[in-house]
Amino acid sequence: MTDRVYNFSAGPATLPLPVLEQARDELLAYPGAGASIMEISHRSKIFAAVLEEAKSNIKTLLGLTDNYHVLFAHGGASMQFTMLAMNFLLGSTADYLLVGSWAAKAIKDGGRFGETHIAWSGKDEGFKRMPEDNELDLDPSAAFVHFTSNETIEGIQFPKEPESNGKPLFCDASSDFLCRPIDVARYGLIYAGAQKNVGPSGTAVVVLRKDMLKRATDNLPPLLDYRVLADNDSLYNTPSTFTIYLIALTTRWVLKEIGGLKEMEAVNTQKARMLYGVIDESDGFYRGHAAPQSRSIMNITFRVGTPDQEKTFLEQATAAGLDGLKGHRSVGGCRASIYNAMPVAGVEALCQFMREFKRTQG
Amino acid sequence: MTDRVYNFSAGPATLPLPVLEQARDELLAYPGAGASIMEISHRSKIFAAVLEEAKSNIKTLLGLTDNYHVLFAHGGASMQFTMLAMNFLLGSTADYLLVGSWAAKAIKDGGRFGETHIAWSGKDEGFKRMPEDNELDLDPSAAFVHFTSNETIEGIQFPKEPESNGKPLFCDASSDFLCRPIDVARYGLIYAGAQKNVGPSGTAVVVLRKDMLKRATDNLPPLLDYRVLADNDSLYNTPSTFTIYLIALTTRWVLKEIGGLKEMEAVNTQKARMLYGVIDESDGFYRGHAAPQSRSIMNITFRVGTPDQEKTFLEQATAAGLDGLKGHRSVGGCRASIYNAMPVAGVEALCQFMREFKRTQG
Repeated sequence: MTDRVYNFSAGPATLPLPVLEQARDELLAYPGAGASIMEISHRSKIFAAVLEEAKSNIKTLLGLTDNYHVLFAHGGASMQFTMLAMNFLLGSTADYLLVGSWAAKAIKDGGRFGETHIAWSGKDEGFKRMPEDNELDLDPSAAFVHFTSNETIEGIQFPKEPESNGKPLFCDASSDFLCRPIDVARYGLIYAGAQKNVGPSGTAVVVLRKDMLKRATDNLPPLLDYRVLADNDSLYNTPSTFTIYLIALTTRWVLKEIGGLKEMEAVNTQKARMLYGVIDESDGFYRGHAAPQSRSIMNITFRVGTPDQEKTFLEQATAAGLDGLKGHRSVGGCRASIYNAMPVAGVEALCQFMREFKRTQG
Repeated sequence: MTDRVYNFSAGPATLPLPVLEQARDELLAYPGAGASIMEISHRSKIFAAVLEEAKSNIKTLLGLTDNYHVLFAHGGASMQFTMLAMNFLLGSTADYLLVGSWAAKAIKDGGRFGETHIAWSGKDEGFKRMPEDNELDLDPSAAFVHFTSNETIEGIQFPKEPESNGKPLFCDASSDFLCRPIDVARYGLIYAGAQKNVGPSGTAVVVLRKDMLKRATDNLPPLLDYRVLADNDSLYNTPSTFTIYLIALTTRWVLKEIGGLKEMEAVNTQKARMLYGVIDESDGFYRGHAAPQSRSIMNITFRVGTPDQEKTFLEQATAAGLDGLKGHRSVGGCRASIYNAMPVAGVEALCQFMREFKRTQG
């Protein structure tokens, strides 16, 4: 595949090559359908099997019991900021951990519906680290504790779930969903825009503990009501069928080709260590943004030499087939997003490029 | 393409074969990107050009002036039922034409936010026809007049826009968007789920007259606020990029291969006449649902002989490579959806099958 680059885009992001190849081969005629999967009814038996596989793979990977719904919602994680607050925050209080740019958005949007109590903020430190449990100022009356497991823009990640005093954890896992095993019983809600670790954009994956629905607000607009999604198996209206199909293929790849989340974590940790190693050995030529204990294994954020050198770095990297390394427009710098689908060979190529760039420029 | 059937599904629906072929050929590497279009940033120059083309094609096809925004919203037409009411109905009144199953949903969801005055109802007649202008009971204080230009389930369509006493028309055009020219200056809002006439599922296309934004409700959740969509060129968060890419290709096909909406209407009218012709010449063996003056050129709904014969008809049609002809679960019977992308050859094959079936069974 000489026409493909190594794509370090933060999202929409690279997908596993075998998944794309299968999607290409089936694009005109899905087996047994005589039509593309995107041309057939979302209520057909063929699509029902695709939807079931997507749900089933996610349940298997996360080790979910029947206590959890797996749902597909419209609008990505940003719509979830509103939807979770409409359903679970209206007229009450919840703890939110302000750990980065996405957490800030969740808090702002949630605040329209209830009280978002900031149990910790990393803002004054420039969002360089996640909090320790003993730093959290949890509200005893909080309905839930919301956290962003990985902050894509800043490149920081919780090493494990934060303390929540027995309250259900609500997690925006958009940029590290299915990157490693989690202690799922502690979660009331996990949501993730598909376009980073599990598919293209167009839907949010929602994992919802069933008993949460008893606490949900009544009579919400149907597509913003988790009960309606759950009662209709995500088919109240037409979902983004092609996105769900690719989620089924991508989660199948994690399950069958990688072997599961423990194996996925091993690969992801290896890739991250390689890149942080290059940064740490560079005598300050590459400077990581994240504090060591909060380093993300998904998004590696760093600065390069002088501003001119950084510009040259990005240009030469693109020319060398290492694309999407520019940091988010709000913070600048460089960012290598190495989600599940980024192969070790891509990280090796980037590490080699970084060492060589430093040798000639440093 | 012997592995493709003629797909009469009501939506998600058949797409133009050249569009699917191009999508397949570019699926692993979009020209110049080194990655699939679904793997790259929605803020990249390459995707920006795709988004611009999708908008530009729609503007050209509809003959839109700069007075209109073309937006892409999450959640399909069903989310628009809520969104348009949040933005434009809150605390006021609007006329709604209750012309079929989808109109009923728009009214129900809109009613959460303001008064939905039913200016006409076809319910007692079984939704067999659209109203004449002189039957409408328009409210002088209405903010807009909402209508469903084509009712997918019942197979009825307005031959032209209804009277609105100078009020802006709000139109759910999900199942006949871009099927023919319209008198666009009369519209304040046109919305359509993409998955019938312009692409796969995953987004709604929204055409909004710019001056409507002055009347919109303030401080709505961002993804449900047309101002936020307009101010951010549909990129407030990650849109369904692959869907927008296919909308760009499909609208390009209507523009370049078909020649525009007048030419598209000619093809669509020809296809519909062929099928209604078979129904009308069948001496009651095939019985159309729609009153002749309201017959849809997109969804042809009919019953077949006896219930047993209808079952056999559907089975034999599927076996003959004519798929998706089963009517909506809420009304039963048969439905041939012949959207823009259904080739004349597909309708010819269906007509021939229907004549032959009647000859042997009738």
